Order: sequence, then structure tokens, then C-alpha cells
Amino acid sequence: MVDSSVDSSSMNPQKNLVVALVQMSCGAIPQANLNDALAKVEEAARRGAKVICLPELFRSQYFCQREDSAWFDLAESVPGPSTEALSKVAKQHNVVIMVPIFERRTAGLYHNSVVVLDGDGSIAGLYRKMHVPDDPGYYEKFYFTPGDTGFRAISTSVGKLGVLICWDQWYPEAARLTTLHGADVLFYPTAIGWHPSEKAQEGETQRSAWQTIQRSHAIANGVFVAAVNRVGHEKPAEGGDGIEFWGSSFICDPLGVVLAEASTDQEEILVAEVNLSRVEDIRRNWPFLRDRRVDAYAGLTKRFFDEDFKL
Amino acid sequence: MVDSSVDSSSMNPQKNLVVALVQMSCGAIPQANLNDALAKVEEAARRGAKVICLPELFRSQYFCQREDSAWFDLAESVPGPSTEALSKVAKQHNVVIMVPIFERRTAGLYHNSVVVLDGDGSIAGLYRKMHVPDDPGYYEKFYFTPGDTGFRAISTSVGKLGVLICWDQWYPEAARLTTLHGADVLFYPTAIGWHPSEKAQEGETQRSAWQTIQRSHAIANGVFVAAVNRVGHEKPAEGGDGIEFWGSSFICDPLGVVLAEASTDQEEILVAEVNLSRVEDIRRNWPFLRDRRVDAYAGLTKRFFDEDFKL
Repeated sequence: MVDSSVDSSSMNPQKNLVVALVQMSCGAIPQANLNDALAKVEEAARRGAKVICLPELFRSQYFCQREDSAWFDLAESVPGPSTEALSKVAKQHNVVIMVPIFERRTAGLYHNSVVVLDGDGSIAGLYRKMHVPDDPGYYEKFYFTPGDTGFRAISTSVGKLGVLICWDQWYPEAARLTTLHGADVLFYPTAIGWHPSEKAQEGETQRSAWQTIQRSHAIANGVFVAAVNRVGHEKPAEGGDGIEFWGSSFICDPLGVVLAEASTDQEEILVAEVNLSRVEDIRRNWPFLRDRRVDAYAGLTKRFFDEDFKL
Repeated sequence: MVDSSVDSSSMNPQKNLVVALVQMSCGAIPQANLNDALAKVEEAARRGAKVICLPELFRSQYFCQREDSAWFDLAESVPGPSTEALSKVAKQHNVVIMVPIFERRTAGLYHNSVVVLDGDGSIAGLYRKMHVPDDPGYYEKFYFTPGDTGFRAISTSVGKLGVLICWDQWYPEAARLTTLHGADVLFYPTAIGWHPSEKAQEGETQRSAWQTIQRSHAIANGVFVAAVNRVGHEKPAEGGDGIEFWGSSFICDPLGVVLAEASTDQEEILVAEVNLSRVEDIRRNWPFLRDRRVDAYAGLTKRFFDEDFKL
């Protein structure tokens, strides 16, 4: 599914691309969330967007707040209900859509994935979340097998696009590898929020770290970054404080300058025009890719240099 | 020179470490700069610092603004004048000192290096700048052979410390590898500034990107980061606008929170106490090292995935 193509940044030096991020809240009924997403994608297309990205697992509330095998009922195949519905919109409006899904690959094998739909409604590519978290309230390792797609730049009618998912955003390795595959824009559909008990003291530090690490991927790699998060306070039916998803979807340029940023608590369709020729311009002036010490990076495949420690 | 030792973060859970960064301007006379550095290091020691870092190539003005083989006269061996003078101060005050030097390894073989002096005055380790830039006004590839030390955590009497140099700061690979060797603090002696013609329009974006990428290394790796830059407007004798070094030395914690930050234009000794137990605490709550996909990172040793592009 990763087609070969030429580098869009060098071939389309003046190419502008209108990107939309759908910052939405998600309710208890999957079909209602899907309908809401369809309407918002259509609105984004009417506003001129050519690439539209939905937030991680948008078709449901964030069920990973607890471990319950009943939630596997939410999983869907590729193609499946979400991709089929959104494929029609993609084709109708000739837009690329990034569709995060809870993917059922077979019985007992599930992934946290994104399907990239091209402007003709076809599936341009699939990415399965490579880094899967597991923290109090984010019990993803119970639900999702770590991805085996590797890191990809997916060829679409508007260029090569990278997509990574939430926890991936903390890993410079993921951004770098996606860039080395030729992506000019990295998308990060996300579901991240505050534990209410931590919000007052730690909330702004956490949100700032989240934005900082993603801006840093733009800077290190000379790419645009577009992160889209959900909003809303989701409380599990069985009790608990739940999670206040912090929104703050944003798009930044290859110098890390934020071009557009959404609120922490409102549904919004964030639209920004990005000039892909900036990738070429900025990498000429900040030639980080030129000087990578690929001869000295083999240790990145190690967990830790235990041999440095006599135990 | 990279001794084996136990992990300071786990062995010293309540260990506080006072760090000092010497933000200084550098004049035309090397011995005067060295004397100035000696006095400032002594002042930092009197203020309680246990680790003191000088800025990149502090013994001279930033000669890389042009290519002139006469400047190789500035290079010194290890041990040499800078390390011998500072070694006495290290021993006298029982402090660790990071001493950036223009290193002469043999005739025709020079490096941009840092010698780490331990509190007994001995040499604890050496690091040679791995990523060497070359941009208008920063013609470093003429002067410096790319380092062959690899990335190191240097064992000292106060723990394992990482040191990287200037251009290295744009490479997440460098920060990651140094962390995987066991460093709890990453030091970045630096010489970076504005081209006066770009300052008004691009200056703040550039300075912000510089801080952002380094804060991101703290976040991604769960380490403290301490960056020290010079100040002053250095104009080459033969003309040209020169470079306005932007200071802005700072120390941030493993969440990327800036603990102390210096001005853009004044000499300062920036002192901050860092609590190394924060490395343990934060990595427990933000367990990024746990989930690295070391099985999927081999491509980081590639320059680019050319096979994705049919040329």
C-alpha cells in the first residue's frame, strides 16, 4: 500500500495544501459519532480542505479507561463501516481523509490504526500504531497489538503523508523514520487528556510537553506537523474521575511555528493552508538531514547500554 | 574513559546536584578568555555549583565565521593549556568542569571537543562533536573532523553526565543514545547566534526552535538538559556583519520545564539545583523508554529510503 512516487516537496515547489483537523467530542453511540464525523468532514471539505484528519478512535468514547473484553465489539475490519462511509465522502469531495479506527484483524488480534483514504475513495494506505501505551486510565496494551506496519509515508493524490498515532508522538524515532520515507506532513490523531486530579498542578506542564515534543519533530525533520485531539470530559459509567481530553489540536510549520491552534474544550474544525515548498526552503537553510551520523546510530536499536553498567 | 558505574538516578534517589552554566562573551585574546573562564568557574564553585559547564570554544572568538588555516594555531592537545589550568580549579574546589576545546589530535586532525574534568582534577572523559555543521558564517567542516567518540555518558564523582556540542542539539538521535548510555543530565555547550540581517524577522523563531528542540530531548528521554551559549556581537576583522550570539542559556527538567534561563545579551553564571530523583519519578509516570520499538528502528541508520522512490 506504500506506493512509490516522487518526492512531492521537490516536484511541487509552490504547492499549497489546505489541511483540516476535526477536533470533536465523542459520545456513547458509535453510529452517532460516525455521523458527526461525516458531517464535519463534509464541512471541512466545503471550507477547502484537501486533507482531513479525524482524532484517534473517534467512533467511540475512549474505552481504554478500563479493561473490558466487551469493548472488542467496537472493532471493525478494513474495509469496514467507518472506511466505507468516509470513502464516499472522500470521493464525493475529492479529499484525502485520515480515518482512525479500532481495527479487527482477526479474532483476538486488534490494532489501533489509521486508514488513509485517497480522493477517489480508495484506500491509499494503512498504519498500525507502533508504540502502544499503558498507564492508569490508558490501558491500551490490553486492547491493541503493537503495530507491524512499520513507519510509512503514504502516497496520496496530494503528496506523501505521514501518519502516526498518539503515543507515537513522544518518540523522535517515529517522526524521523516517517520523514526518511518521504513524508512532508506528519499527522498525529490523538486522544490525550488530563486526569482531573492532576489538572490544576500538572495540567499545563503536560499540555506544553505534548505540544513541545511534536513541534520538535517538525524542527528536527523539516516537516509540517498536524496533531488532532478530541475534547470533552469522558467519565466511565462504572465511576471514576474520567479524563478531560484537552483538545489543543494544532498545525505547525517546519520551524515549529504554530500556524493554527484549537481551544482546550470546544469542538472545532481547524483549517490551515501549508506551503509545501517550505519543506525545501527550510531544509536548505537548516540542513539537518545532511549531517546525520548514520554510521553511529546503530545503538538506537538497543534497549539500553547495559554493558556500561557493571551489575 | 567511559568508566562503568551504577545508575546514579536509581542509586541516589534524593540526590540534588547544583549545576552552573557560564554564559560569557569571548574576546580576541585566548589567554584573557581562559583567565575569564577560570574566574567565572571559581565564582560558580563559590556559589555552590558541583558541575560547571563552559560554552563551546570559549577560549577564542568564533573563528569559524571564515575559513583560514591560520586559526589552527588556536588548537590545543588533551591535556593542554585549557585542561591543565581548569584541572587545578576542579581539584581545588572539588567540582566537575566541562571544558570545550579546539582539539589538536595531530597535524591536520582537529576536533571540536569537550573534556570533562572530575572533582579530583583528573580527566573523566572526552567527547568529540559528532555532528559538524557548515552554513554561511559557521564553516565548521573546514576546521573539525567529525567526532569518532560516539555518544557517551561520562562517569564522574557526581554521576553519569552526557555532553553534546551545539549542532548535536538538533539531533534526537544524539540525545537518545547519550541517555541510553545512562546520562541523567545532558549538557550542550554552544555557540549560536543571529545573522544581524535576519534577526528582526527570523530571530525569535530561530531562538525558540533552538530552545524547543532541546526541551524536547529532556521530555523524550526523561533527563535534565543544560544548554550554555556565549553572548556578544563578534565581527570578523576583515569585515562582514558578524554574528550576534544570543545567550539564552537554560536548564530544564525532564518534563521540559525551564528551571533557569539567562538573558540574550549579558554575561551570567546561571545556577540551578536539579533533583536527580526526578529522573526516576518522571520516567515511572511517562514510561517512554519502556515502549521503544527497537525491533523497528534499524532504518535510522539509513540516509533515506530511496527504494520508496522510483527514479
